[in-house]
Amino acid sequence: MPIQTIGRCLRLAVIGGGPGSEIGEVHRIAARLDGCYEIVASALSSHPERSREAGRALGIAADRAYPSWQALIESESRISDRPDVVAVMTPNDSHYEICTAALDAGFHVICDKPLTTNLATAVDLVRKVKETGAEFCVTYCYTGYPMVRQARAMVHSGAIGAIRQVHLQFVQGYLAFNEAPPTWRLDPDRVGASLILIDIGTHAFHLGAYVTGLDVTDLCAEVTHVVPIRKVDDYASLLLRYSNHARGSMWVTNAAAGAEHGLGFRIFGEAGGLEWNQEEPNRLIHYKRDGFKEIVTRRKDHLVSEAARQVTRIEIGHPEGFLEAFANLYSDFANAVAARLCNTSAHDIQRPFPTAEDGAKGMAFVEAAVRSSSLGRWERLGFDYL
Amino acid sequence: MPIQTIGRCLRLAVIGGGPGSEIGEVHRIAARLDGCYEIVASALSSHPERSREAGRALGIAADRAYPSWQALIESESRISDRPDVVAVMTPNDSHYEICTAALDAGFHVICDKPLTTNLATAVDLVRKVKETGAEFCVTYCYTGYPMVRQARAMVHSGAIGAIRQVHLQFVQGYLAFNEAPPTWRLDPDRVGASLILIDIGTHAFHLGAYVTGLDVTDLCAEVTHVVPIRKVDDYASLLLRYSNHARGSMWVTNAAAGAEHGLGFRIFGEAGGLEWNQEEPNRLIHYKRDGFKEIVTRRKDHLVSEAARQVTRIEIGHPEGFLEAFANLYSDFANAVAARLCNTSAHDIQRPFPTAEDGAKGMAFVEAAVRSSSLGRWERLGFDYL
Amino acid sequence: MPIQTIGRCLRLAVIGGGPGSEIGEVHRIAARLDGCYEIVASALSSHPERSREAGRALGIAADRAYPSWQALIESESRISDRPDVVAVMTPNDSHYEICTAALDAGFHVICDKPLTTNLATAVDLVRKVKETGAEFCVTYCYTGYPMVRQARAMVHSGAIGAIRQVHLQFVQGYLAFNEAPPTWRLDPDRVGASLILIDIGTHAFHLGAYVTGLDVTDLCAEVTHVVPIRKVDDYASLLLRYSNHARGSMWVTNAAAGAEHGLGFRIFGEAGGLEWNQEEPNRLIHYKRDGFKEIVTRRKDHLVSEAARQVTRIEIGHPEGFLEAFANLYSDFANAVAARLCNTSAHDIQRPFPTAEDGAKGMAFVEAAVRSSSLGRWERLGFDYL
Amino acid sequence: MPIQTIGRCLRLAVIGGGPGSEIGEVHRIAARLDGCYEIVASALSSHPERSREAGRALGIAADRAYPSWQALIESESRISDRPDVVAVMTPNDSHYEICTAALDAGFHVICDKPLTTNLATAVDLVRKVKETGAEFCVTYCYTGYPMVRQARAMVHSGAIGAIRQVHLQFVQGYLAFNEAPPTWRLDPDRVGASLILIDIGTHAFHLGAYVTGLDVTDLCAEVTHVVPIRKVDDYASLLLRYSNHARGSMWVTNAAAGAEHGLGFRIFGEAGGLEWNQEEPNRLIHYKRDGFKEIVTRRKDHLVSEAARQVTRIEIGHPEGFLEAFANLYSDFANAVAARLCNTSAHDIQRPFPTAEDGAKGMAFVEAAVRSSSLGRWERLGFDYL
Repeated sequence: MPIQTIGRCLRLAVIGGGPGSEIGEVHRIAARLDGCYEIVASALSSHPERSREAGRALGIAADRAYPSWQALIESESRISDRPDVVAVMTPNDSHYEICTAALDAGFHVICDKPLTTNLATAVDLVRKVKETGAEFCVTYCYTGYPMVRQARAMVHSGAIGAIRQVHLQFVQGYLAFNEAPPTWRLDPDRVGASLILIDIGTHAFHLGAYVTGLDVTDLCAEVTHVVPIRKVDDYASLLLRYSNHARGSMWVTNAAAGAEHGLGFRIFGEAGGLEWNQEEPNRLIHYKRDGFKEIVTRRKDHLVSEAARQVTRIEIGHPEGFLEAFANLYSDFANAVAARLCNTSAHDIQRPFPTAEDGAKGMAFVEAAVRSSSLGRWERLGFDYL
Repeated sequence: MPIQTIGRCLRLAVIGGGPGSEIGEVHRIAARLDGCYEIVASALSSHPERSREAGRALGIAADRAYPSWQALIESESRISDRPDVVAVMTPNDSHYEICTAALDAGFHVICDKPLTTNLATAVDLVRKVKETGAEFCVTYCYTGYPMVRQARAMVHSGAIGAIRQVHLQFVQGYLAFNEAPPTWRLDPDRVGASLILIDIGTHAFHLGAYVTGLDVTDLCAEVTHVVPIRKVDDYASLLLRYSNHARGSMWVTNAAAGAEHGLGFRIFGEAGGLEWNQEEPNRLIHYKRDGFKEIVTRRKDHLVSEAARQVTRIEIGHPEGFLEAFANLYSDFANAVAARLCNTSAHDIQRPFPTAEDGAKGMAFVEAAVRSSSLGRWERLGFDYL
Repeated sequence: MPIQTIGRCLRLAVIGGGPGSEIGEVHRIAARLDGCYEIVASALSSHPERSREAGRALGIAADRAYPSWQALIESESRISDRPDVVAVMTPNDSHYEICTAALDAGFHVICDKPLTTNLATAVDLVRKVKETGAEFCVTYCYTGYPMVRQARAMVHSGAIGAIRQVHLQFVQGYLAFNEAPPTWRLDPDRVGASLILIDIGTHAFHLGAYVTGLDVTDLCAEVTHVVPIRKVDDYASLLLRYSNHARGSMWVTNAAAGAEHGLGFRIFGEAGGLEWNQEEPNRLIHYKRDGFKEIVTRRKDHLVSEAARQVTRIEIGHPEGFLEAFANLYSDFANAVAARLCNTSAHDIQRPFPTAEDGAKGMAFVEAAVRSSSLGRWERLGFDYL
Repeated sequence: MPIQTIGRCLRLAVIGGGPGSEIGEVHRIAARLDGCYEIVASALSSHPERSREAGRALGIAADRAYPSWQALIESESRISDRPDVVAVMTPNDSHYEICTAALDAGFHVICDKPLTTNLATAVDLVRKVKETGAEFCVTYCYTGYPMVRQARAMVHSGAIGAIRQVHLQFVQGYLAFNEAPPTWRLDPDRVGASLILIDIGTHAFHLGAYVTGLDVTDLCAEVTHVVPIRKVDDYASLLLRYSNHARGSMWVTNAAAGAEHGLGFRIFGEAGGLEWNQEEPNRLIHYKRDGFKEIVTRRKDHLVSEAARQVTRIEIGHPEGFLEAFANLYSDFANAVAARLCNTSAHDIQRPFPTAEDGAKGMAFVEAAVRSSSLGRWERLGFDYL
């Protein structure tokens, strides 16, 4: 439905996510779900004819179903009812170029994670975002879950005291096969510094930072492959030190045979702990040092934080899932963009969604972990350049 | 996105679900989620001015944001790009009149449950549906979950053998208060034969029939209120006999203090059993007489039935929830309507969604249960009139 | 270890539980576990020679390893260091005769459940216990679990307010076979009024009464068999009314293919609820009307009731199981008997264990349920004769 | 009950575990539970008079309730019905001296973990065991659980293929207090190289080796304290490499506020995985690369391995717990000792229990981890000296 402050839906252009892509439809459902966006233009494939056809099949007007992202940005930046937002869901190695062009053309941007494929381009993109003053979201989508927002609010309110231990994991099984089908993910030349860290490690890394509000300062990593014939890494395990002297660990893999999604955290503070697993996203386990465990559940009443309620659509006991979490980032972003359209100053915008800075921190994490693993020692992780 | 066979989205008119309604936004999200519908007309409230305003706030064109459902049906039935479907989400006691009018005006209809408030009107509505030849869906929404579809497919394929025991429950706590706030649900004059059975008992009843493919033939019920000062019933417990001599039981309440949603089934057959709970909807427990329990999970691969895969949007481990289940009914219905628009004969239409007959069976169940409880004896439950 | 108040272990004679019996070894482990008993005499089998051999194999002195229970009671009642307690774990239809004889000979008695096979003998046994003044325990063993004690203490302290709903279930699968092996349990002539109710229904019935402190006043039952060729019942489902107007239901079966043990309760009161399942016995779920669910766990600290702590041996997180629960009844009983040996008056004895009265109530329940099922109507359940 | 092959119970002398000790009663229950042992002599405390009194309170004959362990070994080694087994459950820093003396006196020995407090004495004790030819058990008690035995049997049978990933954790909360009460555990002078690794890390380490059959070859550790004022370590996180190139990680802490016991493993191989958590010990989750997850449950039927059945006392669905697991080591050990008494050669003895070698490996692990942590680098872990 229209955003009340501006009396209309935001206009969205989508780049990438054409036939065969799963993430494309996820982005589009996220855009549709709360009715804040109307998809007005598309460049869905790197193949011009497929790109045009796929756009028209989505119901895009024929003259705005572009054959390429370049054509889209070129044309759409010049029309009067130009898109408010460009969403980029192409393969990782094109994010930098496309986002830069979209920012230069004056669009607000939503970019699928990872931000780019290395730290240098990521830092450059952060600079570009600052320069243009645009709103920018990287879809570390798991931060859209109401119970992740709740965990963050509880940590910030002191419910578990000063953070002392953080355990992060993302344990999947979809590549636990010797004979995995050919995919760009298994091609060492296209993967970047580390398949496993870029693909899912950055999600876990961001989740830890998002909930605790703490940065990792040092890490010691083992990044390798456990499926013998593999040419890219499929396993990483890390020791972490946080800015407040808390300690942590991370286990990420896509080669745990039979595992499904496996993203979760356990965080312990001076007075208690919090545990969340994405496969049962509507509940958060609250450990209490001096009491019983409580099962905090998604709901609209005042037992949960306002931050959680704001991203909750339906009453207690009716599960919301991954698509709703993804949609929450889109709707959060819509609110920020609408506020900008109402001339709210950039400084006063609420941004509960992950930003370009968060994306760059993820790339810094990947590079430090790979370096640590190859040198067999601890590495420092600083974000001074941000 | 447009339905490929007809090259466009279906046009939808919505009646009810205005300000303050939760179910209204659920229906609208369900319509938006897969992009099969465009909402073109509305009559959102029984208060004319509020109805118009709410429609415009939803982005409906001013001249199609009607002050009343009568005006909507009257006007929309005469225009050339008239709606394909009318969705009715008003209070229960208006369903019969509105649906009848919509059918008479030639629309296909989606109606929130319960179908009506008594068996006589329900049977009449079934007759009307047959007469008009329209497609009709009652939103017993829990049948939209992929794992409910999976359970049904497993029963039908013989995975647990002949059904022998069925246990149904819907154990909520939202009215477990002496001092519950005034709502039409607590007004004995508006509730109909039984609050608890109409409100949630019919969901459990339909779920049992949907999964097992069996009808209840006899029942013995206790329908009462356990909150002392209450004037409507908030508790029912039933003994059930099924058409194949299987036995069953049902426990439904909204007065279980601290319970959340609580809908679920356990069904046992000659060779095994199935257990599902709506609060963890992405998994189905498969008991095996001669083996270990298996956890059947929502996924897109061939370990699950085609029926489940057809209503699955995202890969294994990424939870789908209530809104997706609800959207599945809308999208199932869109497929049926689109097929009719392509001149597929009514006889050849796939209808995985609940129909008017299912709605009427629910009303027969309610009336038999109330009778059994007040007479303190078993009652027969026949559906010959359908 | 010796009971401190009397400076020695209690002397125990065991009747029944010989080769091939599982429950025999359970009773003996229960007697050994806390070291309160020394097994000094036995009559383990109805076959004289096997009875003697089995006794000697257990380490019983040759002259106290009797060929029959009659010989045991006859001889052991005349010696100076006679047993303090006789434990009876023979087939159900001999309980009445053996317990009567043991009571007449002046022994305290532990009897496996059910107390007898019909109400008349059960009532007679209650009378006999009163007459002799002996201590008597019926091993409804599930009441020995610390978290069942905790639930009872919480109900009594008002933690969930006045009881309003009780749901009991015992859903097993061990007889879910058409071709089940021959056992006395499937012989209608030996089973008594109802296999399913006597075998496991009485456990569930007692558990409900033990935790809530309420008696059932009326019931309406379906008692039948769901395995077609069976000659005894394997399924019962009941509607219950309690003395304080609370409502309840019960589902018991041994023919749920693939189910394991399946005993549990959910009890809701004005302010909250409690849920316990025997398969995860160390935790109790506490539903709160105005808060989150808490997971109450077995522990030695003051978050749990004294009643629970008293039957807890090891620290939090180290599971205790079925054998410990069973042993708790034995040790509770040892305390009662030791107190009697120290001349505590019968009136002042603590009896957290189930007594003969509880056993008789179970038989009354069975007979009322069978009558209700065959007449198809509600039956009253009174205990005035106790 | 008597061990059939030798026609009697084993005679057991216990050293340590007097008043105030929890582990003492655990050992004694473990000895009593299956009736394989008779406790005939004791030295329960380092305080002579308390030692004598506590022995008599346990029912030990006055002349065998010794004032000191030295007196016990001196006297008991000279009598004709001398103990078969000496069980040692004193504080860690006395294990070496007492075990050495007991072995020298010709007893078989059960020793609580850790074996000693450093590698040098542990290696010396292994040598002594070999020299004397005695049977020796270190009570890494978690290997007594039937589902741990099942996991080991499944790994060995190839059910999950070649091992690729091992994740071990032991996450407790009992020292998550700034103001923890004074205990020897918090005294850096008595704790040895590392409280957390000796106290619980060795359990996790042994469990991984026991189930996988693999040794750790290299590790990289962070061993520290997260409670600021603490003087001993309460946290360790490790990266592990296994002999077959599998990778692993370990997280152990006693300072996770609100956590209970928290021991568990997840192990993934080429074809599947296994997950077990001590707090729900009767089930083992079996991940299948090409199928659904199965819940493997403790039972006596042929769906589980013989190794699991051998340590299972009661039927499916009736939980066994920590005390039964501990008792399994005692009964396993009794079988080994009885076989030796029947002149079975040491070479042919089955030893499903942890041995002195396993104890020494634990000490090697502790020392390597502490070294790795203080040097900030990977360390090799060899067991050539064993």
